[in-house]
Amino acid sequence: MTGRTARRRVLRISLPDRVSPRADLLAAEEPLGIRVNGEALTLTMRTPGDDLDLAAGFLVGEGVVRAAPDIASIKVCSADGCGHSDHDGAGNVADVTLRPGITVAPAVRRNFLTTSACGVCGKASIQELSVLPGFDLSADHVRVRPAVLAAMPDLLRGAQRVFTATGGLHAAGLFGAGGELLVLREDVGRHNAVDKVVGWALRAGRLPLAGCVLLVSGRASFELVQKAVTAGIPVLAAVSAPSSLAADLAEQAGLTLVGFLRGSSMNVYTGAQRIDSGPPETGHADR
Amino acid sequence: MTGRTARRRVLRISLPDRVSPRADLLAAEEPLGIRVNGEALTLTMRTPGDDLDLAAGFLVGEGVVRAAPDIASIKVCSADGCGHSDHDGAGNVADVTLRPGITVAPAVRRNFLTTSACGVCGKASIQELSVLPGFDLSADHVRVRPAVLAAMPDLLRGAQRVFTATGGLHAAGLFGAGGELLVLREDVGRHNAVDKVVGWALRAGRLPLAGCVLLVSGRASFELVQKAVTAGIPVLAAVSAPSSLAADLAEQAGLTLVGFLRGSSMNVYTGAQRIDSGPPETGHADR
Repeated sequence: MTGRTARRRVLRISLPDRVSPRADLLAAEEPLGIRVNGEALTLTMRTPGDDLDLAAGFLVGEGVVRAAPDIASIKVCSADGCGHSDHDGAGNVADVTLRPGITVAPAVRRNFLTTSACGVCGKASIQELSVLPGFDLSADHVRVRPAVLAAMPDLLRGAQRVFTATGGLHAAGLFGAGGELLVLREDVGRHNAVDKVVGWALRAGRLPLAGCVLLVSGRASFELVQKAVTAGIPVLAAVSAPSSLAADLAEQAGLTLVGFLRGSSMNVYTGAQRIDSGPPETGHADR
Repeated sequence: MTGRTARRRVLRISLPDRVSPRADLLAAEEPLGIRVNGEALTLTMRTPGDDLDLAAGFLVGEGVVRAAPDIASIKVCSADGCGHSDHDGAGNVADVTLRPGITVAPAVRRNFLTTSACGVCGKASIQELSVLPGFDLSADHVRVRPAVLAAMPDLLRGAQRVFTATGGLHAAGLFGAGGELLVLREDVGRHNAVDKVVGWALRAGRLPLAGCVLLVSGRASFELVQKAVTAGIPVLAAVSAPSSLAADLAEQAGLTLVGFLRGSSMNVYTGAQRIDSGPPETGHADR
């Protein structure tokens, strides 16, 4: 896990009077710039690793790309790879070239380049912030059993290698409807963890992620709902609470939103038709 | 708490087979645009409330303002207050006018307007990201007792009204070195909670916050360390883990960084000279 953690000396204090120096592993955090067709689009503070997935997944979440062929090339710049003199070789820029015909919509660019136009005034701006028009999950009729959902947080936590080492990372895990973990990504930013999952799927030719469940280790925000919807994921589950806007956007997009998924219980905020809370399957053909 | 929470119908599921509809309170999340001298600078997804503090604190964190007189006027726009036709009256834009002579530095604007220059390449970019030159906390010789720090998370949690209602908010609390809670702010975004605290202090004429402790409910990132330093806060404590870059920046700025502040223990990552882990004061004048 070179580069994903960093060792530091700390002073461990335990009341009433125990003080001892020791080594501690921290989750690494470094900036990654994302360039598209030669122009800087955004930068994010992330845990290094899976940077190509992160950049690809970010572009899915912004509605820029929808399938692997939409990206002509993607690379992480090293000292001599980018043509810029201020690189130090750390590979902190992801350089994406889109296939001809695919462009970054002005509205997307505006979200990051924030022009002088007043783009965030009440409802009009929420519409603009959202890249959801054209995305509708209502045709995805997958059903997931509550017991399958309830088992996911332990599966996620068990697979979190960097969290186990540092205690300081968010995670996003993609599961099949039967509860099998397909991929796990960790990051200091929970939006980055989700981008890394979605970018992995894009590059593996697996978008849209019909029939899948995305589990996040923290809360569910507007931003995470948007990322799930643009990746075609019908069910988003969070260990903690959703925000009001997350629930509103989930309702609008036909996403099933589950929150407070802890122990043996959960809250279903939207899309309850996908939660199969009926009696267990008996296996009889005549049911 | 009108506007800070929103009521939603949910389906509560408890394994093995209990399913019941009920009402649930969610933390509200809405966009806030921040305009400076008539130009949009950034937007943030935040929990409504203390919006003037949020905007003011954001500008402190970016190194734009340092004291109350630096802001000539600040208001939240309503339907007819901003001169823009796409408002819906929700008050989702904070309009700031700086006093003559104070401007937004190009480097700050670039952080949000991300120009086509490659501004995030390795170390050079971290320097650019940081607004710390000129900020040095090493002259702040406050000392805090570990037992005082250990008591803070319970004080913070006890004062979190919106979290108690929703289970879904980050908090930032400002404490005196003796452990007294000066101000608490909550938000769906932890950077916003800190901005609200710092903005409150700016507008109350209390910057720099020498001798104070800032406690955050989650992790300590690069961004939060930067916000603490620019507000002149010498001690930042987090209930969870810091990132590597947070520790690096804290070291550079002379900030005391405490992490994993839970129960009766904590890790001191930097600035341990401010942690007074000696024997308790006896009150004798001849000590």
